Order: sequence, then C-alpha cells, then structure tokens
Amino acid sequence: MITPVKMEDSRLWILDQSLLPGQEHYIELRTKEEIWAAIKKLQVRGAPAIGVAAAYGLYRAVRDLESANFQDFARDFHWAKEYIATARPTAVNLFWALERMEERLYQLREQADAETPWEEQRAFIKEGLFQEADAIRREDEQSCLAMGEHGLSLLKKGMGILTHCNAGTLATAKYGTCLAPIYLGQERGYQFRVYADETRPLLQGARLTAWELSREGVDVTLICDNMASTVMKQGLIDAVVVGCDRMAANGDGANKIGTSGVAILAKEYGIPFYMFAPTSTIDLDTASGEEIVIEERDGDEIRSLWYKRPMAPEGIKTYNPAFDVTDHEYITAVVTEKGIVRPPYQDSLRELIHGI
Amino acid sequence: MITPVKMEDSRLWILDQSLLPGQEHYIELRTKEEIWAAIKKLQVRGAPAIGVAAAYGLYRAVRDLESANFQDFARDFHWAKEYIATARPTAVNLFWALERMEERLYQLREQADAETPWEEQRAFIKEGLFQEADAIRREDEQSCLAMGEHGLSLLKKGMGILTHCNAGTLATAKYGTCLAPIYLGQERGYQFRVYADETRPLLQGARLTAWELSREGVDVTLICDNMASTVMKQGLIDAVVVGCDRMAANGDGANKIGTSGVAILAKEYGIPFYMFAPTSTIDLDTASGEEIVIEERDGDEIRSLWYKRPMAPEGIKTYNPAFDVTDHEYITAVVTEKGIVRPPYQDSLRELIHGI
Repeated sequence: MITPVKMEDSRLWILDQSLLPGQEHYIELRTKEEIWAAIKKLQVRGAPAIGVAAAYGLYRAVRDLESANFQDFARDFHWAKEYIATARPTAVNLFWALERMEERLYQLREQADAETPWEEQRAFIKEGLFQEADAIRREDEQSCLAMGEHGLSLLKKGMGILTHCNAGTLATAKYGTCLAPIYLGQERGYQFRVYADETRPLLQGARLTAWELSREGVDVTLICDNMASTVMKQGLIDAVVVGCDRMAANGDGANKIGTSGVAILAKEYGIPFYMFAPTSTIDLDTASGEEIVIEERDGDEIRSLWYKRPMAPEGIKTYNPAFDVTDHEYITAVVTEKGIVRPPYQDSLRELIHGI
Repeated sequence: MITPVKMEDSRLWILDQSLLPGQEHYIELRTKEEIWAAIKKLQVRGAPAIGVAAAYGLYRAVRDLESANFQDFARDFHWAKEYIATARPTAVNLFWALERMEERLYQLREQADAETPWEEQRAFIKEGLFQEADAIRREDEQSCLAMGEHGLSLLKKGMGILTHCNAGTLATAKYGTCLAPIYLGQERGYQFRVYADETRPLLQGARLTAWELSREGVDVTLICDNMASTVMKQGLIDAVVVGCDRMAANGDGANKIGTSGVAILAKEYGIPFYMFAPTSTIDLDTASGEEIVIEERDGDEIRSLWYKRPMAPEGIKTYNPAFDVTDHEYITAVVTEKGIVRPPYQDSLRELIHGI
C-alpha cells in the first residue's frame, strides 16, 4: 500500500504528491532544508502526513550531528525545529509534531544514563527521537484504522459512496480518515462503488483520491463537483463520507470548499452524511462554525493554474474560499478514532472529549 | 454589444467562440463547407445562435448561385441545407431553422412574378431568403428581450444573482435567455452583482458567461461550482437565473449538468430559482423529466481536456452527463418570452402554450 512518508533502512522518503497522478516518484530527504522545501512545495500534504514528515524529518536532520555535549545538540535541534516550522505557517499538526519531538528530547536527556560517556547518551537520545517519530506515525495509523472500523460499521456491502476532496492515505500516515473504511471494506470484500468529486479548484479528488483508490483496486468513478446531485438522484449513492479540518463544539464542521453543498444535497435525497473528524480536530473552545475563519486563496487557482490556455477572462474577479462550514444539522454522524457520535453534538462531542 | 452571428455589408461573420476568452476574433463564412465546420467545431454554439448561423449560412451558400432555373436552384439549395444539417446531429434549432428556410423557398417561388425573366425571380427569391434569415435572428432577439423584461420584473436593484453555464448573448441572437434581464438591468442602473459558476467540465461559465458579462461592464465574480453553497450561505445571492434546454409538461427542466444541485441549494437557503425557457423548449408531449434522455459525454473532458499535465489517473473511470433535470418542485417560476408561469406547472405551462 502507498505510504506518503516512510523511513526505510535509516533513509527518509516521501512520495512527491506534486507529481501525482502523472508520476509516482519517491524523493529522499536528508537535510532540514530538503524537509522544509518538501512541506512548503506541497510534495507532502495533509495535516497528519505533514506531522509525520516533520517528526521523521527533524530526527533525520539531527541524526548525524556530532555535537560535543547536550547543550550543543539541543541548540542545533532547536534551530532545525524552528526552521522546519516555518514551512507552512498555518499547519497545526506541523507545530504539534515538532513540539512533541522537542519535549521528548528533554525527557530522553533525563532518561539517559549520566554515568556513560556523552557519545553513548547521544546515541540513546537519537534512538529515542527516532522511536518518538515512529510512534507519531504509528499512532496516526492506529487512529485512522480505528476511524476505519467505526466508519465501516455504518456501511454495508456493495454501497455506493460519494467522497469530496482527499482525506485518504496521502493525507495521513496510512489509510486516511474518511477513506479508511473504504480500504478496510476493500480488504474484506465489501465491493464499494466510490464516486470521487474532482474538487475544484485544486482537484484533490481527481489527482489524489481517484489515484490512491484506483491504485488499491477500489472501484472508483471520477465526477465533476456539479454532478453530485445527479448521481444521488439516480440512486447511485448510499452514503457520503468526508474529512474534517476543524469541528466546533456544536458539530459544525469546516472542510474543503464544497462540502457543505454536498451535505445539503445528501439531506435532500435522504442519504446519510458522515464527517470523519479525529478528536485532534474537534475544538470545544469554538462555539459554532460562524467563529471559524475561512482562508481565501489566490484567484489564479480558478482562472489559470492548470490550464493550457486562458480559461477565464484575464483579471476577472474571483472568489476562492478554501473551505466551508457544514452546519451540524446536515451531519448524520461524526466518526472519530474514539467512536461515533450523533446529534445533539453539543452534548455528544463534549462527552467524547471529556468523558462527561 | 457582442453579436455571435452577424450579416454586415452582405458578409456573414461569426465570433469564434472556441478562442474565447483569450481572443475576440470574428471569422467570415462564405461557403457551406465553412458554415458546416464553424458549427461542428463549436465556433458558434448555443441552440438559438446555431439556428441563426444556419439560416444566414444557407442564404450565403446559395446567394451567388447562377442556376438556370428554379429546379436547379432548389436542388442546390436542398444539397446545401442537407449538408449543413449534418454539422450537429442533435441540434434541434439547426434543423428547425433550415426547414423554415426551405419552406420559405417554395413560398417565394409562388410569390415570384412568373411573368418576369428567371434571373429577376431568382433575385427576388434570394432577397426573400435573406429576409427570412434576418427574421429568424430578429425574432430570437425579440424573444430574448421579452424574457429579459419578464425576468427583470422578478428582480430588484442591487441584487446578487447566481447563474450556471452560459445562456447569454453568445448562445442566442443577442441578450441571451437568463442573462437578458441582467443586460436590461445593466442599461437601467440596476447594479446587479453576478456570481458565475465556472461550470465544469466545459467551463462555459468561466470562458463565456464571465467574459460576456464583464465585457458589458456587469459586476461579475467567477466561482467554482462547489462554492455556490458558500456564497448563498453568506447572503450574497438573492436570486438564481438559469437557462433551459428542454422542459417537460410538469415543469421538470433539463439544463446543463449541475443545475439541479444549484436549485436544491437555493431551496435550502430560501433563494428564488428562476428557469428561463423559451416556449420552443417546452415540450408538452414529455410528461416529466424522467423521460428526458441525458447525453453522456467523453470522460476526457473531465480528465484531461484543458490541462497542461495529467489531472486524473490515466484511464480512470468517469461519469460525464452533459445535462441534468431540475425537478419542478425546486423551480420558483419559469420565464418565457410570453410571460412568467408559476406552479402548478402541469396547468400553467399548458395554458401558456395552448391558451387553455
């Protein structure tokens, strides 16, 4: 199966997602500069996958350091960490993973046997940092698997499933969030028929979701975003699964632009709409979706980015929000790694997070 | 103002829509082969515009014939007509316009003064054919203007208006169907804010609607199809206007793929949804939208047509319906050149067409 980030024989590789779907090419990352550039240029993307790449990358960046003492090592570590952190200024998982690695560094310092020579302590610390990065990857993989099992319990064999954008293997350590039940179903003979919205303007559905699903043998059909209504009306869709970038306390969920429209269509056609939100994306301090600020991106993504020739009048005014908020009333259930929650979300999300 | 087809100083010109929005280039058509190619290659498109081009084109193709008698002239006319008719096998307006021209030919033969020399009769017939083609253009323009006036009565100054695909000047003789009220409003200081869906896969909204509206100074903002829900939610949209390719007796309307989804969103957000259907598109012999067969087009339109590099996995399965049917329950009103009709459409459409 595809892995967007992998450590093999002490070498760090990432699948260059900027070349997909035309080329499947892994590149090796050795220095903090290479790691920074790979995140910056979206060669690795998706919040959890970025976190994993940053953790492994930070380990890789300090692995060959010959620092003469812990202070020097910790200083170089910190510089590498701060440097990598500037690659994507809004990527929460990036900072989270880097912070966790630095906390681990100081724990390892405490755990190292102070009686042994510094070179041995340094080797112990480096090995511990590798284990921590590996744990971040494994935990994300486990979280995805758990979401997959929970999600699969909502689905039946042979179902037609619509998805929007890419919340799959490429965006995580493995399996993805909303695509995890599809991969598990594939292993277990569920024979899902998946419909992937192409997801304008950046075409993550066409370039990434259609690619990763078809590569694993899943029956996937690519449609334009505006065809969702038609496939639903024709009875081809039994469930909608989507990811989530941030969920407010009332269950409003921000996700890739277009998600809210798919949710309204699903409600109108009586089709369940499942949003997959790792608990790390559930933000109980945000009361509702109205408080979520939506990133607005460059209009050239709509006008000209992919095209051979001008596809819109030069300089035409555009509106290009990157995300939208799906109101909780349209969400049939929220799938997390800790279980499935249902309305009223104001209570069920709080209970999930705080256990009360 | 733009005219997609024009006869000036006895020369027939069309605006080459295949070059829009990058280039605004008129080409002259002189022979039936040139006319055929222009329709075939979508240099002129939109049912009414094709009808006008075919009528003028047929006149142009026979204008310089020196036929020795009516039989020879009628035979060459018929050959030219049959030849042009093969350019777009499903274009109803193309056949309709060509048939009307041939019927007129025989009327003109009756009306010509049989006492005069054949050369004079021939000149009379040719002039009559030109007048007929010109009448087809004028009637379409009048029909668009009438739809514009009716449509404008539904709108208020300063409104935000969403449209999908292109049912504008470029698709008709002038003014368009659903864009006609926007042009009339523009002349009268209504200061509409128009949001144009780009309309994947063929991007008629981006390439044509955004181009023609901005060229006339209308405040137009281009969005991706999946952003319609967001602009509606933000209160930016007060009305939706769309065209119609075919309307069934119960008011179900087939139009460009994605229209039905926009209609459902409009209903959910409480925004009126107006479908502009010239009476020529209302087919009382079709009971409901379920009887309308939808053209399915080549998947490469989704996968690769416009792109610099592969934007979807090679050979990935696609579903590419060209149109969809908007159920009558989502249509607030149907605007025709004869007036506005409202639900129940089963009665109101019949009354509009048959007067009973």
